[in-house]
Amino acid sequence: MILMKISRIGEFGLIERIKKRVERRYSASQTKRIIAGIGEDAAVIKPYGEKLLVATTDTMLESVHFNTEHADFEQIGYKAMVSCISDIIAMGGKPKYALISLALSKETLIKDVDGLYEGMLRCGRKFGISIVGGDVVSSPRNAVVTISLLGEVARGRVIYRSGAKVGDSILVTGDFGGSGAGLEILRGRWKIPGKSDYVQRCKKNLISKHLFPQPRVQEAEIISRKRLATAMIDSSDGLDLSLRFICQASKVGAKVWLEKIPIAVSLKNLTCQKEVESSLELEGALRALIFALYGGEEYELVFTVSHEKVGKVLRDVPHTTMIGEIVPARWGIRYLDRENKEVKLKGRGYEHFKT
Amino acid sequence: MILMKISRIGEFGLIERIKKRVERRYSASQTKRIIAGIGEDAAVIKPYGEKLLVATTDTMLESVHFNTEHADFEQIGYKAMVSCISDIIAMGGKPKYALISLALSKETLIKDVDGLYEGMLRCGRKFGISIVGGDVVSSPRNAVVTISLLGEVARGRVIYRSGAKVGDSILVTGDFGGSGAGLEILRGRWKIPGKSDYVQRCKKNLISKHLFPQPRVQEAEIISRKRLATAMIDSSDGLDLSLRFICQASKVGAKVWLEKIPIAVSLKNLTCQKEVESSLELEGALRALIFALYGGEEYELVFTVSHEKVGKVLRDVPHTTMIGEIVPARWGIRYLDRENKEVKLKGRGYEHFKT
Repeated sequence: MILMKISRIGEFGLIERIKKRVERRYSASQTKRIIAGIGEDAAVIKPYGEKLLVATTDTMLESVHFNTEHADFEQIGYKAMVSCISDIIAMGGKPKYALISLALSKETLIKDVDGLYEGMLRCGRKFGISIVGGDVVSSPRNAVVTISLLGEVARGRVIYRSGAKVGDSILVTGDFGGSGAGLEILRGRWKIPGKSDYVQRCKKNLISKHLFPQPRVQEAEIISRKRLATAMIDSSDGLDLSLRFICQASKVGAKVWLEKIPIAVSLKNLTCQKEVESSLELEGALRALIFALYGGEEYELVFTVSHEKVGKVLRDVPHTTMIGEIVPARWGIRYLDRENKEVKLKGRGYEHFKT
Repeated sequence: MILMKISRIGEFGLIERIKKRVERRYSASQTKRIIAGIGEDAAVIKPYGEKLLVATTDTMLESVHFNTEHADFEQIGYKAMVSCISDIIAMGGKPKYALISLALSKETLIKDVDGLYEGMLRCGRKFGISIVGGDVVSSPRNAVVTISLLGEVARGRVIYRSGAKVGDSILVTGDFGGSGAGLEILRGRWKIPGKSDYVQRCKKNLISKHLFPQPRVQEAEIISRKRLATAMIDSSDGLDLSLRFICQASKVGAKVWLEKIPIAVSLKNLTCQKEVESSLELEGALRALIFALYGGEEYELVFTVSHEKVGKVLRDVPHTTMIGEIVPARWGIRYLDRENKEVKLKGRGYEHFKT
């Protein structure tokens, strides 16, 4: 069984298997709302009264977004779900229902499809999401995972990219640079000298930041419920691009104090070590900043807050840091050192088709 | 411009282009309901009061589901949308909002992406659907198109696969076999002798049935509104498999009179010609039936109706034909000739991973 390929059970055998696996995880309250689920032409769901519908979709390709040499299928499934959740919560929404489209080679092992679903289900369960439908098709080569996620948001609680005003403060959740650094280590592009337990532990932490990100569900919920943000986005394309998207949509500029950007602890600790610094082409702190700004695949929140609410946000929303301020559009986006001098950084976020 | 590749404008340039193209097509009534659309982390939509949400997703891969040698991008986009619409209407729903995920090679021409969207938008406009979001990512090789479609349905009007009862009649819309035959002609697997205008016209009709299918939106709407069907499905996997899915879900069997299955006119006309019959390995009428039962990619409705409503359906719902009857499960699915004798057919619907 364990090494059986999906060609043995075929499309409809696979759907039957997925249906069973998914449905036994439905909670009683979920079952009540799912009027039709997997195995029908479409899912039918009871909506929540007056609330607005929030919907997003993300496609992940093998060899572009994930690599089975670096991550197991459960991790891939978990992370794919996180990426969609992050989009929903960044709008102020609560994720609820997922549709899963898989394109798989017929050589794929059944246990790997099970693993993929296990990861998505585990993540779904943690955040109250049910899988209600999908599609499975054959792929001549690489696997493709597309998740469409539906959620809800109360009227008046939607947070757009476009609401930032000059004078607003820029805040972020969590820390940055860990996922990007973890990916470079996984790919063998950053070879870190030193075999001490300490270095090994740091490396492991960074890799885990990349493979096992956590969406900021609790933080986003507080921000949305208490209407604390004027604009919000998730940082999946990297902190720098997130700032650019907010500034573009809001027609403003931003100044950011580099020193205030929270750097993943393990990255900070590693890059300040003498022996490690020699493996970088840059000064350690600068290299850490470049990971933080351009690394991407971090699912933190980047949001703006009117000046008088900053104290309240820092008190009420866990894991938040103020990193800068919204300025007029003509300033563009400027990174400043502690003497308020602009620092020109060479880096670029990840953009599909351009690499 | 016309031959520019998407690598020239990059992911964000492409999203900007798509956003403009899509938004100028929104109608005023649509705009009112789309609170956030393309360019935010997720779409936000105002739901329709008490109605239920219907959701489906379909993934199409280049070389598996479509082939740019046979169809242009506009046709591919149109058909991808039809496939999703068909799933929504088969549940009794009305399609409303689409999310489009594209994985494209960076060598893709901008005009081809435009064409793809043009096809989806044209189809969307025809059936009142707005594109509200999506994702574009790079693919190392083949293009992947995933559409997630959201719709609505009034409570009590949902039609499942599982409601068929012994004694119900089996009805279908439209005719069958055209799409499957068209694909075989396109692929060059069915070489039809004869160059007469008449033969050429028939060939063209069949190819157009394959490339340019029409979802049965009007028919499904009447069936759902007047609560005429006990079970319904679309025939995208082929008529035979559609019957099997209804029977499996409803725990019943079916008998179908082969003579009553409506065959695409051009297919019927071609296969009964002496000179064409020699190009088939089977008797012409039998070959046409095999296309009809196992061809697939036809977006007709297959549905069951209680005995006393058959007359009403045939009168009120355009393009409908009665082809058989629901029988106890132990009978399985039987195809009968005009003397009520069972005909054993050798054929199989398309199943991913099995071919």
